[in-house]
Amino acid sequence: MIQPILWKNNQVVLIDQNTLPAYERQVVCSDYHEVVDAIKNMTVRGAPAIGVAAAMAAALGSLFVQEKSPDHFQNKFNAICDEIAQARPTAHNLFWTLHRMKRFLQKCLASGKSNLSVELVKEAKRICTEDVEINKQLGQNGSSLLADGDHILTHCNAGALATAGYGTALGVIRAAFAQGKKLHVYVDETRPVLQGARLTAWEMQKERIPATLITDSMAGYLMQQGKIDKIIVGADRIVSNGDTANKIGTYSVAVLARAHRIPFYVAAPVSTFDFSLVTGAQIPIEERDSAEVKQFHGVQVAPQEIDVYNPAFDVTPAKWITAFITEKGVLTKPFGRTLARLRKEVAHETVAF
Amino acid sequence: MIQPILWKNNQVVLIDQNTLPAYERQVVCSDYHEVVDAIKNMTVRGAPAIGVAAAMAAALGSLFVQEKSPDHFQNKFNAICDEIAQARPTAHNLFWTLHRMKRFLQKCLASGKSNLSVELVKEAKRICTEDVEINKQLGQNGSSLLADGDHILTHCNAGALATAGYGTALGVIRAAFAQGKKLHVYVDETRPVLQGARLTAWEMQKERIPATLITDSMAGYLMQQGKIDKIIVGADRIVSNGDTANKIGTYSVAVLARAHRIPFYVAAPVSTFDFSLVTGAQIPIEERDSAEVKQFHGVQVAPQEIDVYNPAFDVTPAKWITAFITEKGVLTKPFGRTLARLRKEVAHETVAF
Repeated sequence: MIQPILWKNNQVVLIDQNTLPAYERQVVCSDYHEVVDAIKNMTVRGAPAIGVAAAMAAALGSLFVQEKSPDHFQNKFNAICDEIAQARPTAHNLFWTLHRMKRFLQKCLASGKSNLSVELVKEAKRICTEDVEINKQLGQNGSSLLADGDHILTHCNAGALATAGYGTALGVIRAAFAQGKKLHVYVDETRPVLQGARLTAWEMQKERIPATLITDSMAGYLMQQGKIDKIIVGADRIVSNGDTANKIGTYSVAVLARAHRIPFYVAAPVSTFDFSLVTGAQIPIEERDSAEVKQFHGVQVAPQEIDVYNPAFDVTPAKWITAFITEKGVLTKPFGRTLARLRKEVAHETVAF
Repeated sequence: MIQPILWKNNQVVLIDQNTLPAYERQVVCSDYHEVVDAIKNMTVRGAPAIGVAAAMAAALGSLFVQEKSPDHFQNKFNAICDEIAQARPTAHNLFWTLHRMKRFLQKCLASGKSNLSVELVKEAKRICTEDVEINKQLGQNGSSLLADGDHILTHCNAGALATAGYGTALGVIRAAFAQGKKLHVYVDETRPVLQGARLTAWEMQKERIPATLITDSMAGYLMQQGKIDKIIVGADRIVSNGDTANKIGTYSVAVLARAHRIPFYVAAPVSTFDFSLVTGAQIPIEERDSAEVKQFHGVQVAPQEIDVYNPAFDVTPAKWITAFITEKGVLTKPFGRTLARLRKEVAHETVAF
């Protein structure tokens, strides 16, 4: 099993996703700042994985906080969490897990627990373990949407590498494939960081799931030719009305899917839902370094002086989404009703913050 | 002025478009097979440029044919043309110029001319000179479609480098910019071969036309944000009903343009129109080496064993095209009528073959 994030000997061990598939190497973080850097530079990426890594970073940070007093510990820990929260702006899971860690500490303090960092480490490890379980449940829930013989398009990497393991969009594909359904996956390479070409292609090969790599610009042509039956992507943030932020290019795929009447599914755990926001226009969209577009692996491809626009995400309006696949079930339209029900169901887990 | 193809001392001199923008170097071909290789490996690319290079290759080939007899010369020359025609399958201009060269020889023979290769060299040079004039006229014709302050998206490179000079889609932008209109160009990088990032960005910088480089996957997001006023692309082949083959990804841009009600213009000379075909489904679409997708500018990015689909072109249905910009004028809808009129007007130039 691919385990992109591990807690080991009071260190956070990450698969270096920047060097895949050429090199399978690990990055060992013994200080929470190193985990923050790993999130920023995309050593670890994918909304659920960022969330798990952030929880572990917080736990790692807590190991260095002295338990002078409950207040002192809590203030220091919360400050660490707030610092980690600055790592990247778009993925909701980052804020969700940090909130959970803060709330967990609050509970520990309320019940008079000591050895707080030990407890926080346990909680971070639970978040990691639960994430895999959630993905497996989500995968199971979504698998019925895939039929034997389906050709499925996916964008970016919403696989084991984007989570603590198993994956969201690729988790659905894994689950259906494990049931014996013959599937074939078209993998958008996903410029500029090539998570499709580098990570999804690598995962599909590891699992021996038939897959074909294409450039992002080919997806529409495949749809026109009737070669794509379904589309599944992950999500970085889903707001109250169902508008969904995901990797740049997802919006284009959704518009093309609609034009060709192809089902477009978003697979994401509850921790990706941000019910504090009303519409997708409120989601902060990260813009990243122009070098991601102008260069690759240090090789310059465009004129050095050319202006670049590099948003890392875009927002797909709920109206172009066929259904959300979550660990709580498949949410179909009308989303106004189904999302409100989910919101109520998970209210204790997803307090706005 | 950028001159990607020159006849010089009985050699064909090409700007090496594979090394741009890093290196501005020339490739000198003294044998027509070298020109064919240059077309195949995309040292020279872009439908009109391929056409001009093919005519020059034919002229170069003719220099080595002995004038034993008119029939002998013609047979040898036609065989050379047929060999050159195999270089790439999609761009119509390749076949158009070769047909013109063959027909020109026919006329020379009919009028009893000698020094046939000298005449053929002259004709190839005329095709080159005319191509620039055609582009300037086309640019002038299309310039009225662009307004002061427009933000224009273009895909691939339909610029000076894609022609004998000046360009088609970029020719329209050049002409409007020269008229003093303030324009800003969004440049799709155009994976897999990055003609946008490498060539269009380079041309825009040379001309000091404000431009911003984006990945192909960002175009839809820009349209959603209302940041794109018009779209102009070139074409590799336009058939009787208006269906248009152009660089892979053009179809997606056209569907997105339609969804956002943005005008989508195709700029191409008459030599790109293939009235021998009825619909776009008949256009042969070249599939190129998987290495173009698996590698990024020579650097391996995907697992070596992953399956790849790499069509170099796609076909945009006429219904998604707002107008064609040609040297004969701007053709608007209904295309059934305007294209039929063009067909009649240029019948003597574009005999099916």
